[in-house]
Amino acid sequence: MSETPDSAVRTYIEEHRAAFLADLAEWLRIPSVSAQPEHAEDVRRSAEWLAAKLRETGFPVAEIWPTDGAPAVFAEWPSGDADAPTVLVYGHHDVQPAAREDGWHTEPFEPTTIDGRMYGRGAADDKGQVFFHTLGVRAHLAATGRTAPAVNLKLLIEGEEESGSPHFRELIEARRERLAADAVIVSDTGMWSEDTPTVCTGMRGVADCEITFRGPDQDIHSGSFGGAVPNPATVAARVVAALHDEDGHITVPGFYDGIVPLTDQERALFAELPFDEAKWLRTAKSYATHGEAGYSTLERIWARPTAEVNGIGGGYQGPGGKTIVPASAELKLSFRLVAGQDPDKIEQAVRDWIATRVPAGIRYDITFGAATRPCLTPLDHPALQSVARAMGRAFEQPIRFTREGGSGPAADLQDVLGAPVLFLGISVPSDGWHAPNEKVELDLLLKGVETTAYLWGDLAAQPLR
Amino acid sequence: MSETPDSAVRTYIEEHRAAFLADLAEWLRIPSVSAQPEHAEDVRRSAEWLAAKLRETGFPVAEIWPTDGAPAVFAEWPSGDADAPTVLVYGHHDVQPAAREDGWHTEPFEPTTIDGRMYGRGAADDKGQVFFHTLGVRAHLAATGRTAPAVNLKLLIEGEEESGSPHFRELIEARRERLAADAVIVSDTGMWSEDTPTVCTGMRGVADCEITFRGPDQDIHSGSFGGAVPNPATVAARVVAALHDEDGHITVPGFYDGIVPLTDQERALFAELPFDEAKWLRTAKSYATHGEAGYSTLERIWARPTAEVNGIGGGYQGPGGKTIVPASAELKLSFRLVAGQDPDKIEQAVRDWIATRVPAGIRYDITFGAATRPCLTPLDHPALQSVARAMGRAFEQPIRFTREGGSGPAADLQDVLGAPVLFLGISVPSDGWHAPNEKVELDLLLKGVETTAYLWGDLAAQPLR
Repeated sequence: MSETPDSAVRTYIEEHRAAFLADLAEWLRIPSVSAQPEHAEDVRRSAEWLAAKLRETGFPVAEIWPTDGAPAVFAEWPSGDADAPTVLVYGHHDVQPAAREDGWHTEPFEPTTIDGRMYGRGAADDKGQVFFHTLGVRAHLAATGRTAPAVNLKLLIEGEEESGSPHFRELIEARRERLAADAVIVSDTGMWSEDTPTVCTGMRGVADCEITFRGPDQDIHSGSFGGAVPNPATVAARVVAALHDEDGHITVPGFYDGIVPLTDQERALFAELPFDEAKWLRTAKSYATHGEAGYSTLERIWARPTAEVNGIGGGYQGPGGKTIVPASAELKLSFRLVAGQDPDKIEQAVRDWIATRVPAGIRYDITFGAATRPCLTPLDHPALQSVARAMGRAFEQPIRFTREGGSGPAADLQDVLGAPVLFLGISVPSDGWHAPNEKVELDLLLKGVETTAYLWGDLAAQPLR
Repeated sequence: MSETPDSAVRTYIEEHRAAFLADLAEWLRIPSVSAQPEHAEDVRRSAEWLAAKLRETGFPVAEIWPTDGAPAVFAEWPSGDADAPTVLVYGHHDVQPAAREDGWHTEPFEPTTIDGRMYGRGAADDKGQVFFHTLGVRAHLAATGRTAPAVNLKLLIEGEEESGSPHFRELIEARRERLAADAVIVSDTGMWSEDTPTVCTGMRGVADCEITFRGPDQDIHSGSFGGAVPNPATVAARVVAALHDEDGHITVPGFYDGIVPLTDQERALFAELPFDEAKWLRTAKSYATHGEAGYSTLERIWARPTAEVNGIGGGYQGPGGKTIVPASAELKLSFRLVAGQDPDKIEQAVRDWIATRVPAGIRYDITFGAATRPCLTPLDHPALQSVARAMGRAFEQPIRFTREGGSGPAADLQDVLGAPVLFLGISVPSDGWHAPNEKVELDLLLKGVETTAYLWGDLAAQPLR
C-alpha cells in the first residue's frame, strides 16, 4: 500500500504519539525555574535530560553549553547532502516560577492531561514547543526514508530565557562558528488562534532608559518656595507629555528615521485577520484603544515603534498630602523598535532630545539598559514561504501572517549569525504563558510535529545559501 | 524724674527681663510635641502651665479649651474702657518633634542661652512669640499707669498647629462669640531679617487634591499592548504638563478670577527689600529661579497663586526596568491661593478642567483635602498701620512690608470672626523653625515685648469697630 508523504507523516506521528507525550510529561516534571536559585540544579537536570533525549532521537552531537548562569543545550545533526542548507532551531528549557497556591487547579510540575490539553508549567512556554522538534525530525526521516535530515539541523535550547537571557548574546558570540546557519527557526511564540494558524514575521526590539531629574537638594516647602523654583516632577511630567504629539506620533527628532515601512500587502493581510477589538481589550484588561493616528490596533502593537512610560515617581507618595517641591523625580521609559531602527541611534536621539527639555536649575542623569534589536523577515523570503507551506500542509488550511509586539533574544541570533529568523510556534493566547494553569493543546502540539516533518525537506529545496 | 513712655517701657522690660527669660525657659522644658502621641500629656501640661502664667500675668480669665485633639488656651482681659476695641492674639503652644541625634548641639528641651540666643524647640515657633505678650501687656500697664489694657485683650493659643490644626476651625466656630474681636494679631510668623524689621500683610491659602488615574485593570505587557491602549502615567504627566503655559501662567479656566491685584505701591515696597537672589536660592536649596513671567521672585512666592505637583507616582519604581503599561498613576497637586480666590471655586475649576484632560479608557478619582483660605490686610488698614507704628517705636527704624507664601489657620480666624488679621512676628529666617538648633534672638524677643507694650494703646485710638 502506497502512502502519500503527508499520510506517512501522520501515521508515524500517530504511532509515536503516546511515547512522545509521556516523554514530554517527564521533562515537564523537572521544575527548571531559572529565576529561582533553589532550582539551579533542576535547570541543570533539565539540560541533561534534553541532551540525552536528543541523542536518543538521533542527533549525533548533543552537548551542554555552560554559561555564567544556567546551561544551554546544543545539538547538531548533519544532513550528509552536499550543499544542504543549515537551519538552527532556537527555544528554551527553563520555565517561569509556578506554585499551586497561585491558582493552579493541578500541580504545576505534575503534568495532567484533561480534554486534550496537557496542563503544566512549560507545557507551551517553551518545553512543548522545543519538544515537537524531536518527533518532527523522526517523522521527517520515516516519511522520506532518509537516515539524516534534509538540512543540517542544529538546536540551541537556552536555559535563561525566563530570566532575561543575561548571557545569551555572550554565548552566541563565543559560539558563533558552531551556530552558523542559513536560517533560524524560533519555536517560542504562538499563533493567532486554534482556528487561524499563523506565522510571525518579526518582533519589535526594545530600548529602555531611566532618567532622574534633580531640583532642590532636598524636598522644600511649597509655601515658602513654590512657584519660584523649578519642580523636577513637573519637568519629568513635561518630558512624558512631550513624547507624543496630539496624533500619537513620537516627537523625538530622528526617531522614525530608517524604519522599514509596512507594505500595503502586509497591512491587507493584517486586516484580514479575525480581530475582535472588544475581545482584545479584555485581554489587555483595558477600556479603550488609543495610539498613533493612521494605524490599526494590530499595526500599532506589531509594526509601529512606541514610547511608553513604564514608571514615574517623585515627591510624596504616601497617604494624604505634603506641601513640598520635591527634590527629585524619576522616569522609566521604554521604546519598542521596529525593523530599520538602530538602538544605538535611538539612544542618541533620546539623549539629544532630553537635553533640550530640561530647564535651568534642574540637573539630570540618563542611563540606558541593554537594548534588544527588532527583527523582521520579508513576506517573500523563501524560508518564510517554506514555513508557511509546511504549516499549511499540517493544518490543511491557508496560513496567515502576524508579527509579535514583544521583544526577545531572537533578534540577537539574526544580528550575530546574519541569518533570517523565522518563527514557528503553535501556542495559542489561551495557553496561559507566565500564568497559572499553563497548558498546551495536544492537537496543535502534534501539528507542530507535523509541520517540522514537512519543513526540512521544503527548506532544503530553497535557495538559502 | 519724668520719663517718656518709651523709656518707661524699656526700663520696665529691662527690670523684668531675667524673670521673663527664666519663665520662658521653664515653658520650653515641656516637650509639647502634638504630633507624637507619647507627648499628649506634655501638651496638656504645657496648656496648664500657660494658663497659670497668664493668670499670674493678670488675665482675669484663663481657661483650657479642650478639643478632640490637644487643648487650646484662652485668656481674656477686658479693658474697662467704654468703646475699647477688642483684639485677639493667636499663637500656639505645641512644638515640632526634636531629638538630640537629629543634629542638635544642645538638648532640645533643655533651653540653653549662648551669645544672646536661646536655643530650644519652640524658642521661636511659637512659645517665644506667644510669651512676649505676657511681659508686653505688663509693660503697657506699667508705662501707662493703667490697671487693665487699653484694648479688650484676648488670647487664643492653639495646641495642634504643628499637627495641621485639625480641630481649629471647629473650635473657633463653636467659640465664635467668646472670640469675637475687631482685629486679630497673629504672632506665629517672622521678619525679613535682624536688620530689616517687617510686618507681614497676608498669607497665601492652599487647596490640595489627589488624583488617581486608572488604565488597565493590572500592569500589562508593554510589548503586547504598548502603543495601543492609553497609559495612565502618561495621562497624569500630561495633566501636570498642561497646568502651566510656556509663560508659567496656570491654564485652568477661571483660576485667576477675582484675584485682588498687587498694587503698584506694594510691588514698589517689595522691590525695596534687600533681596539677594543667590542667598535666597541657597535657602531654597535650589539652582535657579523659575516661575510666572512678569513677576519677581518675592511676588511669585508671596502674592501670586501657584499650582505645584507635590508627588507623582505610577508603574514600576524599583531598580532597573520593567516593560509594562502601568495600571494606575497618582498625582498630588496643591494650589497656593491669594486674596480673592475662593477655595471652593478653585476646587470646582480644577475638577472641571481635569474632566477635559482624561482620554477615553482612563477612569479617575479626584479628592480634595480641607482648604486653607488666603488672607490679606490692605496696607492702609488702620490696624496694620498701628502694628507698623508700634514696631517702628520698638525697633527705632522704618518698618517694611512683606507677605507670607505659606498658609496657616490665621485665615480661618479672618473668615470665621470677620476681623482683619495682622501679623506681629519677630522671628528671623536663621531661627531654624522645624529644624535642629531652633533658637530665638533675645534682643528681638524683647523688641516683640516692647512692640506689644506700645501696640495696645495705639490700637485703642484707631477706628476699628
